[in-house]
Amino acid sequence: MGFKDECGVFGAFGHKNASHLCYLGLYSLQHRGQESAGIVSFDGTDFYAVKEMGLVSKVFDGEKTEYLKGESAIGHVRYSTTGASNINNIQPLYSQTSKGRISIAHNGNLTNAFSLIEELEKIGALFQTTIDSEVILHLLSRSSHSDFSDALGETLGKIEGAFSLVMLGENFLVAARDRHGFRPLVLGKKDNSYFVSSETCALDLIGAEYIREIEPGEIIIISKEGIISFTIPSESVIQPAHCIFEHVYFSRPDSQVFGDSVHLVRKEMGRQLSIEHPAEADIVMSIPDSGNSAALGFAEQSGIPFEIGMTRNHYVGRTFIQPEQSIRDFSVKVKLNPIKHVLKGKRVVVVDDSLVRGTTAKRRVSAILEAGATEVHLRISSPPIQFPCHMGIDTPDRDQLIAANKTTAEIMRFVGANSLGFLSIDGMKRSTTAHKKSNYCSACFSGKYPLDIKNKGKYIKGHGKINLYAEKR
Amino acid sequence: MGFKDECGVFGAFGHKNASHLCYLGLYSLQHRGQESAGIVSFDGTDFYAVKEMGLVSKVFDGEKTEYLKGESAIGHVRYSTTGASNINNIQPLYSQTSKGRISIAHNGNLTNAFSLIEELEKIGALFQTTIDSEVILHLLSRSSHSDFSDALGETLGKIEGAFSLVMLGENFLVAARDRHGFRPLVLGKKDNSYFVSSETCALDLIGAEYIREIEPGEIIIISKEGIISFTIPSESVIQPAHCIFEHVYFSRPDSQVFGDSVHLVRKEMGRQLSIEHPAEADIVMSIPDSGNSAALGFAEQSGIPFEIGMTRNHYVGRTFIQPEQSIRDFSVKVKLNPIKHVLKGKRVVVVDDSLVRGTTAKRRVSAILEAGATEVHLRISSPPIQFPCHMGIDTPDRDQLIAANKTTAEIMRFVGANSLGFLSIDGMKRSTTAHKKSNYCSACFSGKYPLDIKNKGKYIKGHGKINLYAEKR
Amino acid sequence: MGFKDECGVFGAFGHKNASHLCYLGLYSLQHRGQESAGIVSFDGTDFYAVKEMGLVSKVFDGEKTEYLKGESAIGHVRYSTTGASNINNIQPLYSQTSKGRISIAHNGNLTNAFSLIEELEKIGALFQTTIDSEVILHLLSRSSHSDFSDALGETLGKIEGAFSLVMLGENFLVAARDRHGFRPLVLGKKDNSYFVSSETCALDLIGAEYIREIEPGEIIIISKEGIISFTIPSESVIQPAHCIFEHVYFSRPDSQVFGDSVHLVRKEMGRQLSIEHPAEADIVMSIPDSGNSAALGFAEQSGIPFEIGMTRNHYVGRTFIQPEQSIRDFSVKVKLNPIKHVLKGKRVVVVDDSLVRGTTAKRRVSAILEAGATEVHLRISSPPIQFPCHMGIDTPDRDQLIAANKTTAEIMRFVGANSLGFLSIDGMKRSTTAHKKSNYCSACFSGKYPLDIKNKGKYIKGHGKINLYAEKR
Amino acid sequence: MGFKDECGVFGAFGHKNASHLCYLGLYSLQHRGQESAGIVSFDGTDFYAVKEMGLVSKVFDGEKTEYLKGESAIGHVRYSTTGASNINNIQPLYSQTSKGRISIAHNGNLTNAFSLIEELEKIGALFQTTIDSEVILHLLSRSSHSDFSDALGETLGKIEGAFSLVMLGENFLVAARDRHGFRPLVLGKKDNSYFVSSETCALDLIGAEYIREIEPGEIIIISKEGIISFTIPSESVIQPAHCIFEHVYFSRPDSQVFGDSVHLVRKEMGRQLSIEHPAEADIVMSIPDSGNSAALGFAEQSGIPFEIGMTRNHYVGRTFIQPEQSIRDFSVKVKLNPIKHVLKGKRVVVVDDSLVRGTTAKRRVSAILEAGATEVHLRISSPPIQFPCHMGIDTPDRDQLIAANKTTAEIMRFVGANSLGFLSIDGMKRSTTAHKKSNYCSACFSGKYPLDIKNKGKYIKGHGKINLYAEKR
Repeated sequence: MGFKDECGVFGAFGHKNASHLCYLGLYSLQHRGQESAGIVSFDGTDFYAVKEMGLVSKVFDGEKTEYLKGESAIGHVRYSTTGASNINNIQPLYSQTSKGRISIAHNGNLTNAFSLIEELEKIGALFQTTIDSEVILHLLSRSSHSDFSDALGETLGKIEGAFSLVMLGENFLVAARDRHGFRPLVLGKKDNSYFVSSETCALDLIGAEYIREIEPGEIIIISKEGIISFTIPSESVIQPAHCIFEHVYFSRPDSQVFGDSVHLVRKEMGRQLSIEHPAEADIVMSIPDSGNSAALGFAEQSGIPFEIGMTRNHYVGRTFIQPEQSIRDFSVKVKLNPIKHVLKGKRVVVVDDSLVRGTTAKRRVSAILEAGATEVHLRISSPPIQFPCHMGIDTPDRDQLIAANKTTAEIMRFVGANSLGFLSIDGMKRSTTAHKKSNYCSACFSGKYPLDIKNKGKYIKGHGKINLYAEKR
Repeated sequence: MGFKDECGVFGAFGHKNASHLCYLGLYSLQHRGQESAGIVSFDGTDFYAVKEMGLVSKVFDGEKTEYLKGESAIGHVRYSTTGASNINNIQPLYSQTSKGRISIAHNGNLTNAFSLIEELEKIGALFQTTIDSEVILHLLSRSSHSDFSDALGETLGKIEGAFSLVMLGENFLVAARDRHGFRPLVLGKKDNSYFVSSETCALDLIGAEYIREIEPGEIIIISKEGIISFTIPSESVIQPAHCIFEHVYFSRPDSQVFGDSVHLVRKEMGRQLSIEHPAEADIVMSIPDSGNSAALGFAEQSGIPFEIGMTRNHYVGRTFIQPEQSIRDFSVKVKLNPIKHVLKGKRVVVVDDSLVRGTTAKRRVSAILEAGATEVHLRISSPPIQFPCHMGIDTPDRDQLIAANKTTAEIMRFVGANSLGFLSIDGMKRSTTAHKKSNYCSACFSGKYPLDIKNKGKYIKGHGKINLYAEKR
Repeated sequence: MGFKDECGVFGAFGHKNASHLCYLGLYSLQHRGQESAGIVSFDGTDFYAVKEMGLVSKVFDGEKTEYLKGESAIGHVRYSTTGASNINNIQPLYSQTSKGRISIAHNGNLTNAFSLIEELEKIGALFQTTIDSEVILHLLSRSSHSDFSDALGETLGKIEGAFSLVMLGENFLVAARDRHGFRPLVLGKKDNSYFVSSETCALDLIGAEYIREIEPGEIIIISKEGIISFTIPSESVIQPAHCIFEHVYFSRPDSQVFGDSVHLVRKEMGRQLSIEHPAEADIVMSIPDSGNSAALGFAEQSGIPFEIGMTRNHYVGRTFIQPEQSIRDFSVKVKLNPIKHVLKGKRVVVVDDSLVRGTTAKRRVSAILEAGATEVHLRISSPPIQFPCHMGIDTPDRDQLIAANKTTAEIMRFVGANSLGFLSIDGMKRSTTAHKKSNYCSACFSGKYPLDIKNKGKYIKGHGKINLYAEKR
Repeated sequence: MGFKDECGVFGAFGHKNASHLCYLGLYSLQHRGQESAGIVSFDGTDFYAVKEMGLVSKVFDGEKTEYLKGESAIGHVRYSTTGASNINNIQPLYSQTSKGRISIAHNGNLTNAFSLIEELEKIGALFQTTIDSEVILHLLSRSSHSDFSDALGETLGKIEGAFSLVMLGENFLVAARDRHGFRPLVLGKKDNSYFVSSETCALDLIGAEYIREIEPGEIIIISKEGIISFTIPSESVIQPAHCIFEHVYFSRPDSQVFGDSVHLVRKEMGRQLSIEHPAEADIVMSIPDSGNSAALGFAEQSGIPFEIGMTRNHYVGRTFIQPEQSIRDFSVKVKLNPIKHVLKGKRVVVVDDSLVRGTTAKRRVSAILEAGATEVHLRISSPPIQFPCHMGIDTPDRDQLIAANKTTAEIMRFVGANSLGFLSIDGMKRSTTAHKKSNYCSACFSGKYPLDIKNKGKYIKGHGKINLYAEKR
């Protein structure tokens, strides 16, 4: 916990309730982004958009989905950063292009965006947002190919980095995934209509059947004629590099991601963790709900009873007012409260999914001890996070990553635990059933990036940026 | 689940952050009422109030707690019924009385309210709300006792039914509980200031020490001089009758209620349930989060492994838009999604806390079977609910209570389970450590009411009612 | 200008669009109060209310008038004081009484309210608002008369001061006016339905025919049986004392008030002013729109051409943001801008209706001179205001009334005019066609109050007051 | 009245309260556009924007001008069309260009926009809004000139039609006006800072000194080094064609436009009208406030007394709820009410500024007759409007222009007047002091357009259009 994923995408094609199903899909993908939400639909003649800051439930309240006419739609959710943010940057983007009107929504991060922007601006391109995917629209519009799929292949062949994207054109829907397959993207079907989603949990909600993943490097175009599939042109063979953090934290436990059940992978991580870092204790508890699956695995493997040591307040609003200095630290306590009668006099194994800054963990450990626990053995079902992600996850700066700056022993003392254990990189990967080493990107733990990220640093601060006031709903 | 508690109360006296701590207290008590929230404070000269429809997080957004000046405050949350409701009825109430300015907030239901109102109106009293507690202000103002505590004793001696109340006067705070002690009410302390709360979880959040319960029939008056305690005058000895439903469903698992840990009582209910209604199954799961504690107890007692069979969407807003007929039933699915990989091919014990109408249970059972479970054995950690509550819980009409109209076998077939077991009344009560039979009210299960409820039916429909438009925040 | 009237009332009986016509009526009476607005309707069974802070256009936006069911309704607008005010105090009030359910809205001020409140509280009455008219409900409910009209007569005979009120009961509507007839109140008819309004302009808007004034001391009760009229019982003969300030400033120029056209009275005041205080000048201009009628009269009488010297910005919102110190004084300028080409090199007579603090006049004079006028001759079409009103107008404290503290010569120097003339009391009264001296209250100019106001000062500060947070819409 | 102007622009450079002064400027220009408002500022490093649907008073409520940091700012107001409109289209626009970051706001309409868009799209340009001024940014970004002023001159030389525009760059402000000078644009100064505004009334409000007009075809660039001025390159000499409708209706009467006082021009139009179309009547009245100036001129010339025959309700909100069929037509009546005592038994000359559809005039005439007037002589201080405007005014379709479809006699009968007279084109132009015939565009009256508008019809419906939901504030 503590990381921020930046996006979830969803697409619906050929259903009379396209925008409503898209809204439901975004509802299921809300955990992937809470800053803003947007849907663009097409009714055969016109495009319609609803895009606002805020949660899906707020952005689409009242009768706004009725505004979104038509049988095809794409949608997007994005992570929350600060109160005032840029409404121009809410996806899906939309533009008139030389290939017709196109709307696009993507999850991920392009690593060569800036050098492409620089080139495009030199030849007069106007950039009106600071979203990477605007580059895609420019490249597409300038492509000399008159055939749309040729132009699209050429475009996606030029961009590098992570992207799982959906595009809505006049009478077709595109889904595409970068050649490493960093971010998930799946295809579903219901009532003879097709759906594309970041995660399978959205297909479950709308009652759609899971068909398959969009493959790394695959482009599909869905139209009334059916689905055509082709591959992003590439000069070399590229090894998949699925983001292991989708299993560790991002994806919902009820989703199937990269061919595995997220819940079962996490439970197995808990088992591995118990083997790697056993503890003498009376009970195993999780930090709800992020540590639930791994804690259950740890308990099963270790034989120590699983208990509910903390309870979650379901009514924590987004706008918790910070009390004055003398009565602060309530923002952590208001969310989770220890159950004293469970913890009193007990040696407790506490399982959480990951450790970022360590400050929240410190407060949790402290609250558990205050509630009467005699020992706290903190177990983290992933390795220490030490490196930034350049493939679409908004990691804190390195100096804020506790594991990049302290040893495990130092972290243990910082959070106030009696012992501390992290799962190994190897143990983490082996917890997936598809655990061949080459399949996952674990750069945030290992520092080994699967692609060249040299250009990343060249991004000029302030380029193209405007601070547009927006109120959250 | 499915029942509606109507209220939570909180009071703070003698703290410079009184209203902010009151706000935090209400945050913790939000599960007891989501329709409206209000706080009244007193700064030695003036009273201040913020009262609105909506959740605590919304009602007090911005800088509204700063508006509530002073070192004493009382607050209230009330259950949500419909979109437009009566803003006049939001508690705390406030009035100028012959005993000075008084604000009052209460949890519970007076059973002789109407006969008192009738008498009072005959002698010219004006009723400007439809809240029972307005009766208390009228009686207090008309009391011939010039001493406030005498007048208060006389007043509370005249009213019958359930009440756990807080009152804020000019420089003092009152807490009182009816003679049966139906609803919980506790006293806490922090920084030499006193706090009163419906549940201990609110004391935990603000870091206050739990002192003791306000006793059934006790009145305390807190002022700068300290606390005085006295008893509501009574002609006969009255047996306590704590609402067992506070343990079954209402109170938060991390609270201590009527001397017991709610979580541990629920876990014990699960154990008892396993003994009374064992099942042959592969896994035990709960309907999260209401069934969590009991499911854990059931698993421990039965030896069947505890699993997470459903995952909860934390982002379900309050304003879920119902899709059209053709794509409905999403409101249940959007909240909880089964984990297919866990359920596939399994015989599953599903534990929930209570069964009211049966319609939600039916959908949950159906979803679990669709996700691949081969058998569903539904276990309810409380007895069948068959009778209305007259002590402050908003039960559905009897014709909507499935157990008042169907046998257990019929209910089993209705919900589509392979077997169904309810905990016995005796087993339920024995799950508390203070399980002497006379101590609890279980009228909603047994129909045996601990006081005379004959007058209840005399309430004239429409009396004093005005439909005042109010928007929820 | 600068005074604040406090209220406008409207009532509709027996029309299927009662609440919508009431809304339109309040729209026309908006100048009498901009703080809050409310309507209560009755549909034969239930009462419905919409009451909020803000302008009529905002309070009743959306479909709120549809919420107000039934064929009878009363409404009220009140003046704006500060941003946060007491939502409890928004009229119409409503209560269950011993005479049935009653809603009341009134314009005016009771001069013996406090002594009545004191008496009532001694015998146990609860006051839940700080509005004078709550006293009326208490007296009515306690009246020993079983007949409603007897009880109402008794009640209104006990109260003193100014009131033009409407009441809505179960199936009847009441209109009544105090014995002096301070505030206006008229009766109208349309489609066999009756309407009551503070001013005739509201009857014009809804297309109702003006029937007559409610007479001073008259009570009428409108029901399906028709109208009954009777008189407030009184021990002595009371001389009418119509508020002359309704003609000077409050009422709309298109209304007929106390038997006279407001516009024509104002125009005549301008003529008188020209006779009493002639000026050598090139043009006559008004401060729009308050001085328009009198300026036209002044121009006609004097033969000096009428010109438009200032233009009004129609889009000044209610929430003008004050700029920083260095760029302030815009709030006056944003509303009215001088027309330089008209004023340049001219000697100008500037006519306004009244002078309260003198600060706004000072700014206007200064702006006119800056725009190029060579001389400004300020003419006020009413006498100097020197005394507070106790009959329902919210006057500033005496120390803020410039004419109570400075001579006319001093005021002239303060505002920076080349000459200054006020209309005489006699000239003002003679400007009405019904100008027998005894007919008008001019206490704010003369200090001669038509009734005993000794008790006024006895009101205890803070009694019954609660500061309830309310956001303006 | 009835026409819609589309825009007002304002710019501030080098003032520490730049955005606040810009806000005040827009406040003064609110009559030029009520749909949306926006300001973009620059603080030396970053750009800041606030852009929303709604009135200036609402868009910038709270502390939003504080968000707009920096000493230079440009702002824009736009006319209201429908409830839901395109938030993407709110000006100022903003983009990263090859010439740096640029923000732009313009008033007017480009007549060759579509052919330019077509050309630009062919070479890959993306159009993300449907605003003409986006074309300007594209042309600027693609200009091969490396010098900004050369690039700007080249760009503005390529576009045709009407534009008065402001641009904000990194450390400079641009103001430019098309070669015909259709729309007004003036330069002002205050505290060593420069300001640009559509009308002089905005300079008056902020206390800035009027310097001069931006000349037709002039470009100025304001920076810390001072002002440079140059001319849009042109192959031929272009005759000025100032929009005469600015004098007739659009501009505020207190503004100086095209070298004339708007009020004095309108008054002279009233005099001319009296000469061209005299009437036998008792009084002259205006439709307030649009007809005020001309009515005064008519009265002076004719010797018939000027009277106030209608009064305006200052509190008409933007969201007037239409009553049901049986009680409709209130939207006209709620705004203006006739004064019966003035009109009764009188022969009345009614003066208004223009006649578009005739439906409002019909209702006004009818209301004046109902109020008791014996004759109504309608006089319009402009000629019959018969042709659409292509230079930035949103005229109704020709089939809705009453004068394009009926003779004057037919219109007279339609509106129910006893006589009707329109000012002649010649009389209208002669009412200006700068009345050389070639100086004004009167195409909406004469059909003689000063430039080629053939391309106008080529605009492809739906091109680039997206319907983006936006709530008005």
